[in-house]
Amino acid sequence: MSFEITKEYLEEIQQLIASKSNEHILNLLDEVHYADIAELVEELNFNDGLYLIKLLDSEKTSDVIAELDEDDREKILKELSAKEIAEEIDELDTDDAADIIAELPEEQKEEVISHLEDVEHAKEIVELLRYDDDTAGGLMAKELVKVNENWNVLTCVKEMRAQAEEVTRVHSIYVVDDNDILKGRLSLKDLLTTSTKTAIKDVFIKKVDSVTVNEEDEEVARIMQKYDLEAIPVVDEIGRLVGRITIDDIVDVIKEEAEKDYQMAAGLVEDVEADDTIWELTRARLPWLFLGLLGGVGAARIMGLFEGALEDNAILFMFTPLIAAMAGNVGVQSSAIIVQGLANDNLKGSISNRLLKEFSLALVNGAVLAVVLFAFTWIWQSDFNTALAISISLFAVIIVAGIIGTFIPLFLDKRGIDPAIATGPFITTSNDIFGILIYFWIAKLILGF
Amino acid sequence: MSFEITKEYLEEIQQLIASKSNEHILNLLDEVHYADIAELVEELNFNDGLYLIKLLDSEKTSDVIAELDEDDREKILKELSAKEIAEEIDELDTDDAADIIAELPEEQKEEVISHLEDVEHAKEIVELLRYDDDTAGGLMAKELVKVNENWNVLTCVKEMRAQAEEVTRVHSIYVVDDNDILKGRLSLKDLLTTSTKTAIKDVFIKKVDSVTVNEEDEEVARIMQKYDLEAIPVVDEIGRLVGRITIDDIVDVIKEEAEKDYQMAAGLVEDVEADDTIWELTRARLPWLFLGLLGGVGAARIMGLFEGALEDNAILFMFTPLIAAMAGNVGVQSSAIIVQGLANDNLKGSISNRLLKEFSLALVNGAVLAVVLFAFTWIWQSDFNTALAISISLFAVIIVAGIIGTFIPLFLDKRGIDPAIATGPFITTSNDIFGILIYFWIAKLILGF
Repeated sequence: MSFEITKEYLEEIQQLIASKSNEHILNLLDEVHYADIAELVEELNFNDGLYLIKLLDSEKTSDVIAELDEDDREKILKELSAKEIAEEIDELDTDDAADIIAELPEEQKEEVISHLEDVEHAKEIVELLRYDDDTAGGLMAKELVKVNENWNVLTCVKEMRAQAEEVTRVHSIYVVDDNDILKGRLSLKDLLTTSTKTAIKDVFIKKVDSVTVNEEDEEVARIMQKYDLEAIPVVDEIGRLVGRITIDDIVDVIKEEAEKDYQMAAGLVEDVEADDTIWELTRARLPWLFLGLLGGVGAARIMGLFEGALEDNAILFMFTPLIAAMAGNVGVQSSAIIVQGLANDNLKGSISNRLLKEFSLALVNGAVLAVVLFAFTWIWQSDFNTALAISISLFAVIIVAGIIGTFIPLFLDKRGIDPAIATGPFITTSNDIFGILIYFWIAKLILGF
Repeated sequence: MSFEITKEYLEEIQQLIASKSNEHILNLLDEVHYADIAELVEELNFNDGLYLIKLLDSEKTSDVIAELDEDDREKILKELSAKEIAEEIDELDTDDAADIIAELPEEQKEEVISHLEDVEHAKEIVELLRYDDDTAGGLMAKELVKVNENWNVLTCVKEMRAQAEEVTRVHSIYVVDDNDILKGRLSLKDLLTTSTKTAIKDVFIKKVDSVTVNEEDEEVARIMQKYDLEAIPVVDEIGRLVGRITIDDIVDVIKEEAEKDYQMAAGLVEDVEADDTIWELTRARLPWLFLGLLGGVGAARIMGLFEGALEDNAILFMFTPLIAAMAGNVGVQSSAIIVQGLANDNLKGSISNRLLKEFSLALVNGAVLAVVLFAFTWIWQSDFNTALAISISLFAVIIVAGIIGTFIPLFLDKRGIDPAIATGPFITTSNDIFGILIYFWIAKLILGF
């Protein structure tokens, strides 16, 4: 299976839109998945995309709108009236509906909600809007299948049929008591294999994993991954079943989390995409570049302190970029390993053990690299002392850089700060400065200027 | 919900193992999830962990073993006989079973397979072993629920009950014809709401997304994410249903993919973890460090070409680390944005448009940073020409670095090479060299040495 938007396909659609061949367009898109239509809308120019959204019926376009990039969605929704938006929202599951309403401008939110036709649906959406984006409450949907422990299998199947109308996919059947307190779950298998008169009480599984509404999204992701869950029920503070989170929403959380770490490591302070505006990209990139500039100025001033060595030891100054680069590279490597270990929750042992290990590792790597550099410098400059000074400095710098790269993320994590901030420009810049300082200091000891 | 292995808990288990209080241990771990037991085994020392594995019955330990880290699993399995391993494998789903057998030493594989009790299961595992790790065939499991389009709902429910015994979770009911060709799927909802005499032919959904056995795992991940699928059937070359992939296996693919990009950006050539041996870590880290060393030596030689300028323009040499660092930072930022855009398949437009955009962006960022640096250098050195030379160079370097950082990953991607290789040390090193070259060249033009 694969649907690809070829150039020809795109041109055909554009022509059909230009000639307003609505029947033809509807036929063409009838069998196409909403995720593909969303891609199509993003490929088309804005007016053509809007034309498609307005042409297709809201059962289909609601999903298309939910699937669009946030930026594109914002632009499209601006062109729709509150009533039109409400029609789309009416078709969506509560979680997507709440997400889209949350993105609307404050003054429009209430208007859209007041236009929702299904009052029950509207109430649920309003409830979901109360929760923070990055909590279980912000992720969950209200659509679920639940049965009362006091029913029997027959009543249960009957009730489930009614509930299933509202629910696109049945993940689990949750069992509650008369107060809506989550008691357990019912397996489809048992339901299929038990006589209709059996009481639910006698067949349901008393154990069910759940999270509370205020649980952080990353913790929910961790739990669902660890226990291989495809859906998890969400309960309120007193244990009442209030919603459920499915794994597809968690996939997004996991992906965003991994991408965020990568972006931080690359020196981007905001979540940006290649298609964002130059202003957004500048806002994400400039802060770390300023830090880099500051670091570079610091390095220049440090080198200025050793200006007296310039005349006799010019060669030292040629090697500062090498020292700085190696300090940066080693620091980035060690911090990345720690940050990933922390993110995957598989760092065992104490901080001092980590540092000791990194120290041994840096000892090995540093020695190999220092020997190579020594050989090269000696051959190039035929000056034993200079070659010695440069290579010993490299050795020392690699060790210090490795230890800083290991320590800072562990330290930040202990302090409750996201350690990912310590990768990338932060570690490179600080290691540049430390590296150059150590380098000139050791060179001075050996060469005596 | 949350299970945490506290120090006290760990000590209690250790004491119970030391005193061989088997009954007590079994009671204590009876209600504990296998994923938690796996964590416990990893926290304990090797012999205690092995003791637990041997103590618990294989229904539980099979899942624990599947859940362990590959390294830990290898060590544990070395201590078990082929027959013991086969007992564990017998309890596992085919996909996990095949993964574990694939990890065994060649000579042990056949022996373990010959000890498998369930012949049908063994045949399926052997079939799965044929597929590459990173294809749909390598990810899929044989456990699924399928019905023949010629049955009626009653036969179908009866058959499903039998099949469901083998299947832990029912994701979808697939419909096949007499030749096992995948025709569509059956919704549980329809099954619950249709009379038992209805023919399956009349109720099943004719449309079902599927992938072929040879599809790449990343493509499967992309499809399942895009279409929000929780399971996808796998067909062979002629369309016969041969297995199914569930979203929890895809979560691992997505995570590994994201982590791989991050590790490459951090200059790690292999997938390593903080707990790997020093040798493994060195193997992952040293290659890029060598490249960095080479780059640094190159930079030193380039600076050597301009040695004549040292006497009158020593200050230029103080600013090389700044220039090199900025070139590296800008390059990493732009390449990361491109690599992520490529990974998420949301880069639209031509390469020249991308380069033009990066050019404009670098123009803005470069101008801001150059003005700041100019002001600083002028105040520090009170030399207009030097300040001008350094800041204009920075401006030029930022533009070139941005363009290189954008172009290289796009170019590699066009050539079918993983663009993630272009982030991190590769881009930093090449940008260092280009940066320094441009810097001295522009300075020479302005200051005329």
